[in-house]
Amino acid sequence: MTELAAVKSALKTQAVETPSWAYGNSGTRFKVFAQQGVPRTPQEKLEDAAKVHEFTGVAPTVALHIPWDKVDDYAALGRFAEEHGVRLGAINSNTFQDDDYKLGSVCHPDAAVRRKAVGHLLECVDIMDATGSTDLKLWFADGTNYPGQDDVRDRQDRLAEALAEVYERLGENQRMLLEYKFFEPAFYTTDVPDWGTAYAHCLKLGPKAQVVVDTGHHAPGTNIEFIVATLLREGKLGGFDFNSRFYADDDLMVGAADPFQLFRIMYEVVRGGGFTPDVAFMLDQCHNLEAKIPAIIRSVMNVQEATAKALLVDQEALAAAQRGGDVLGANAVLMDAFNTDVRPLLREVREEMGLDPDPLGAYSRSGWGEKIVAERIGGQQAGWGA
Amino acid sequence: MTELAAVKSALKTQAVETPSWAYGNSGTRFKVFAQQGVPRTPQEKLEDAAKVHEFTGVAPTVALHIPWDKVDDYAALGRFAEEHGVRLGAINSNTFQDDDYKLGSVCHPDAAVRRKAVGHLLECVDIMDATGSTDLKLWFADGTNYPGQDDVRDRQDRLAEALAEVYERLGENQRMLLEYKFFEPAFYTTDVPDWGTAYAHCLKLGPKAQVVVDTGHHAPGTNIEFIVATLLREGKLGGFDFNSRFYADDDLMVGAADPFQLFRIMYEVVRGGGFTPDVAFMLDQCHNLEAKIPAIIRSVMNVQEATAKALLVDQEALAAAQRGGDVLGANAVLMDAFNTDVRPLLREVREEMGLDPDPLGAYSRSGWGEKIVAERIGGQQAGWGA
Amino acid sequence: MTELAAVKSALKTQAVETPSWAYGNSGTRFKVFAQQGVPRTPQEKLEDAAKVHEFTGVAPTVALHIPWDKVDDYAALGRFAEEHGVRLGAINSNTFQDDDYKLGSVCHPDAAVRRKAVGHLLECVDIMDATGSTDLKLWFADGTNYPGQDDVRDRQDRLAEALAEVYERLGENQRMLLEYKFFEPAFYTTDVPDWGTAYAHCLKLGPKAQVVVDTGHHAPGTNIEFIVATLLREGKLGGFDFNSRFYADDDLMVGAADPFQLFRIMYEVVRGGGFTPDVAFMLDQCHNLEAKIPAIIRSVMNVQEATAKALLVDQEALAAAQRGGDVLGANAVLMDAFNTDVRPLLREVREEMGLDPDPLGAYSRSGWGEKIVAERIGGQQAGWGA
Amino acid sequence: MTELAAVKSALKTQAVETPSWAYGNSGTRFKVFAQQGVPRTPQEKLEDAAKVHEFTGVAPTVALHIPWDKVDDYAALGRFAEEHGVRLGAINSNTFQDDDYKLGSVCHPDAAVRRKAVGHLLECVDIMDATGSTDLKLWFADGTNYPGQDDVRDRQDRLAEALAEVYERLGENQRMLLEYKFFEPAFYTTDVPDWGTAYAHCLKLGPKAQVVVDTGHHAPGTNIEFIVATLLREGKLGGFDFNSRFYADDDLMVGAADPFQLFRIMYEVVRGGGFTPDVAFMLDQCHNLEAKIPAIIRSVMNVQEATAKALLVDQEALAAAQRGGDVLGANAVLMDAFNTDVRPLLREVREEMGLDPDPLGAYSRSGWGEKIVAERIGGQQAGWGA
Repeated sequence: MTELAAVKSALKTQAVETPSWAYGNSGTRFKVFAQQGVPRTPQEKLEDAAKVHEFTGVAPTVALHIPWDKVDDYAALGRFAEEHGVRLGAINSNTFQDDDYKLGSVCHPDAAVRRKAVGHLLECVDIMDATGSTDLKLWFADGTNYPGQDDVRDRQDRLAEALAEVYERLGENQRMLLEYKFFEPAFYTTDVPDWGTAYAHCLKLGPKAQVVVDTGHHAPGTNIEFIVATLLREGKLGGFDFNSRFYADDDLMVGAADPFQLFRIMYEVVRGGGFTPDVAFMLDQCHNLEAKIPAIIRSVMNVQEATAKALLVDQEALAAAQRGGDVLGANAVLMDAFNTDVRPLLREVREEMGLDPDPLGAYSRSGWGEKIVAERIGGQQAGWGA
Repeated sequence: MTELAAVKSALKTQAVETPSWAYGNSGTRFKVFAQQGVPRTPQEKLEDAAKVHEFTGVAPTVALHIPWDKVDDYAALGRFAEEHGVRLGAINSNTFQDDDYKLGSVCHPDAAVRRKAVGHLLECVDIMDATGSTDLKLWFADGTNYPGQDDVRDRQDRLAEALAEVYERLGENQRMLLEYKFFEPAFYTTDVPDWGTAYAHCLKLGPKAQVVVDTGHHAPGTNIEFIVATLLREGKLGGFDFNSRFYADDDLMVGAADPFQLFRIMYEVVRGGGFTPDVAFMLDQCHNLEAKIPAIIRSVMNVQEATAKALLVDQEALAAAQRGGDVLGANAVLMDAFNTDVRPLLREVREEMGLDPDPLGAYSRSGWGEKIVAERIGGQQAGWGA
Repeated sequence: MTELAAVKSALKTQAVETPSWAYGNSGTRFKVFAQQGVPRTPQEKLEDAAKVHEFTGVAPTVALHIPWDKVDDYAALGRFAEEHGVRLGAINSNTFQDDDYKLGSVCHPDAAVRRKAVGHLLECVDIMDATGSTDLKLWFADGTNYPGQDDVRDRQDRLAEALAEVYERLGENQRMLLEYKFFEPAFYTTDVPDWGTAYAHCLKLGPKAQVVVDTGHHAPGTNIEFIVATLLREGKLGGFDFNSRFYADDDLMVGAADPFQLFRIMYEVVRGGGFTPDVAFMLDQCHNLEAKIPAIIRSVMNVQEATAKALLVDQEALAAAQRGGDVLGANAVLMDAFNTDVRPLLREVREEMGLDPDPLGAYSRSGWGEKIVAERIGGQQAGWGA
Repeated sequence: MTELAAVKSALKTQAVETPSWAYGNSGTRFKVFAQQGVPRTPQEKLEDAAKVHEFTGVAPTVALHIPWDKVDDYAALGRFAEEHGVRLGAINSNTFQDDDYKLGSVCHPDAAVRRKAVGHLLECVDIMDATGSTDLKLWFADGTNYPGQDDVRDRQDRLAEALAEVYERLGENQRMLLEYKFFEPAFYTTDVPDWGTAYAHCLKLGPKAQVVVDTGHHAPGTNIEFIVATLLREGKLGGFDFNSRFYADDDLMVGAADPFQLFRIMYEVVRGGGFTPDVAFMLDQCHNLEAKIPAIIRSVMNVQEATAKALLVDQEALAAAQRGGDVLGANAVLMDAFNTDVRPLLREVREEMGLDPDPLGAYSRSGWGEKIVAERIGGQQAGWGA
């Protein structure tokens, strides 16, 4: 197989999981601008996600968020998904929207609240059993707003205890993906603020606990690709929540703010052997202003383009320049790949996959956007609260 | 008058305006945790604000937010305030919560939306006429989320045009306070992102246009006291929106995150002749977790403490050390004032003003907190949407 | 002329000024790693700069730094430059390396030190008269390290006074370019820390005073292209000091850290009518690890590539999408240009200019690098101190 | 023992190690401003450090930096120190100032350079054997400036190998303190950029490897006290390099930029049981502008004041408020301690220790500053290069 054929082959196997909640309404604390045609049920979210997969060919699974996607019959929901050409993916827990969680969930000073939160997490594993999901994604909004508000170290103890209980409950092929976040919604301490904290907890829990890197959850200037390389070296990279940012956790389309950074991240993934099913590539974005389905298609394409460029890096030439201490030469090898316009290559890949080479155009021509605006009238639009 | 007497005298004249909306519910995009006893009407907000003034003696005015505080009869609202011992303060406009403003208000590409936004601003001046308010505080959520989304420069032209029209409408004793903000809710460009932009617009508008410094609206590491000193030197500091932050626009209690920074800001205010009624000292905070009225009392006290320390700086000794190039000596003069415990002094000031020396204790003992929880049952609690 | 021909034509007129000091040694406070073959005299710097122009065709002028490039006969230096195919460009002042400047130069508390600093600036204008340079670039290291160290506002007064005196001395076709910098070497206040401060001073001085944007001199997250658009709108953008950064003022090769940002900046330049001789495009970089001449060639090429992409933006399609509120469509128009591989176009441009299409290869094949290593033996290598 | 007596007792046992290099000249990449009277030999540095201990009573040890403090006879140097009332402390390695280290030391692509670097580290342990030092402090300037320059993961492998070799060499009572740093002098990747990386390496090495927290080595906004609490919980906090910063690694006097942060850090130290000899409290500062000895005295006093406040926190009241979810109450307990003026208490402590209550005044009156200016004439002043 020629090298280009290998690149194409790899691109065809790519899988980017899209999140059910990105199809619903989202916004900022100032305002949620509702969009027409937004799904009102988990099923409608799956329909939209299926469209993304239909036109990109590389978005075969859909992450659920509990309780936002709660249904009575998850097996039926799984069948619904498969009838539409997609599968259910990771289960995302939610311990931040109940009134009890004002001062935290698994780190709350009150044992009863912690109990409730752990109960929710265990329920999520039950749902995984029902859906066949292998990944439990844990993001905790826990933290404090004011110095002194709670004891930083006690909260770590409580966190460790809760995680251990959930870890024990995991089945054979299930794992827990622990996400870290620099800040928000907590504004002084966050209980899992950085990769080091997530790593330390996962290490103690065992091999089924892995770290998730959300690309928007770092301090300004943080070198994310370094973290990716390090976690892969430690065997602890469970996956990504992709999005992009200029400031804080802006949750913009991945690749929109800094496409070079996305490329560097994907290069470390490829170089570190992370381009495998063991590393989950998920989106976690908010399309506050732009149309949601095309924004998600665009995001998937951005990941594809960054991956294609990463795969095109001439690793041999790079290694030679690096070993020789040729700073400019090594940098040039990397930049050559980044500066390549990979869109023609990806069009070919799509055609070889039996897809329209232009996913956005094809989606637009499909009329789906108009159809859902016309048909999804009444009911309660999905959003972060439902 | 001895120096200490002068400090006390100055502290007694201090006036910190509290914002009506801080008495209502607030939160993050993830969740608004409602609190019991929160006001349901502008009148109830004024009642709460009156309590803050009753126990601190230095919070005599209340900022209104339109449309959140819209009433049919502003004159009656003003009388209601005065009956409770406070007065109506600045009028804050809101051009970010109408569906039309998804892509901006005064900077929107569509002239009809701009027209609507300007109409709202002019209405705010009408309300000022009715309330006797002198300050129109303008904060625009305008901006873009994606590169290319709109033309950066055209938006400045539109902004300038809108501001000019509103400026023309201002009465003799009215002024416009233009606020800047680094980011949020816009995540790529913000149309008034920094003091330079606000200054440039105000300069062209004329003397009735002044810049407002919100202490939470800066890039990481920004030296805010430098901006304060510069704006005072330029005659363009209209006032403050006080709050504090560790990360972004966290809107925590002023002085909670970095009391030394607040002291440095107040020192530049004092040094630059800004401790006058021409500079408005306002709070703009969100009490997402903590009880609102005591949080606001605490915030007012924090401003008082920083002011007391700033007034206590030995300016003569400082100037001598500065002129002599004595780096450590000059720093030591400033730190001496900061390290002073001014709480006993403020207790004295309060007693001399006929107040309880312990505002938080007095509030707690007053039973107001329990009373509003018991009485404010039913209705729609005030929040950012109402 | 077809559109592509117009783009090519514009690219051929591009002029990027390279700084004499970038050919000398540089480093961090921890270590300056000397490189072999580095120039020892202003003449040797010009020889190297001439090579950059010889192979790129778009680096016709060289900025001087006084006193690092002090010579007895500037007319002779100018002839030397022209004999080598380049011209002398902006004169850069230096008021940060004399022992007297420990506490500042034009802002120093001691009038005698200020006098000395102004004297140096006036001498720089004398040198401009001799070299025919039109631009005096002013960067002040002035600031303080500790709160209280000096009076923030007095320093502004001193700065204004010094600038006014130098402004008065400027000749008919001369102008002053005032640079701002967020921090370093001062660590508490910097006397010209942001574009707003530089703008306010330039505005008062008059039309010959313009602001310089050094792309590495901003707070984390600052939207530099917004500043560019704003300064162009105000008629106050004098030029750029290009470099790139991941953290602070890293002074890496322009385009190396965030090529998308450089593109966005160049897009605002083009859109705002700034792609003219009135806006100076200068490099200000440190090649601490990499070979200097090829690094500068690469930097010039990076600017060319960003410019080519900016010129390729379909402005009509962009404006249509913007006016229509099509967030994704407008963003896509911009990204289409950025995602284009413009290297083939630039190769054509170079061939049409009679140049080798591959500047780095041509430089490498020229043997200049080996020649200077072999010949420049002995003497004092140029660096930031000499 | 009353509580206050216990606080005083703890304060009397405090030990802050001062670094030999802080007594020498330092500066920025722009300029090192030499000061009169600066030491020229390791012995003179010890003399100055002895003065700091003489007047503060809590700076009994002095960190050495190899090769800056290289001597032929370390036993003699140790005796010299003891004759002056101090002891030799941690040994700091230096693998960043040899020309071979341009592309790294223990992470360098060339095995020969790595060998040399490890050789230096082993030599440092030899010196520890001679001086009786128990701590080897390792800070690596290793990293890269450009994407692609070297392989991120290979560099981690090399780092791990080098650390393991040095770890094996450690004696019974010796340990290795691994420092992390966000950036500088490397501007793209740093090989130990954060606590997580240092922690992961130390964990694998074993109990003699501990993490050092330099308070200036974090991304903007990082919550350092959280890291302190976490490392203490993990049993991996080896010590501190204290200094303060507004921007990057400014290396200002500890407590000068954010005294509240220093207090919060010391509170977590106290709360986490870290106020013991197992956690080393060291300064690592640059006194570029201010007189060095008084600056270091001031820094030691700042640490004392923060410690005193931390010890004064009413832990019982705090825990009660925290357990009760009383956000404002818990914060108030912490702030009460911070707002306390502990200077009178520290004056008492000093008097009880037989010291002048005013260390800076006593130093000033001692005439030492004038004496060294008068006597230390000629020779080569100590600085970062010697």
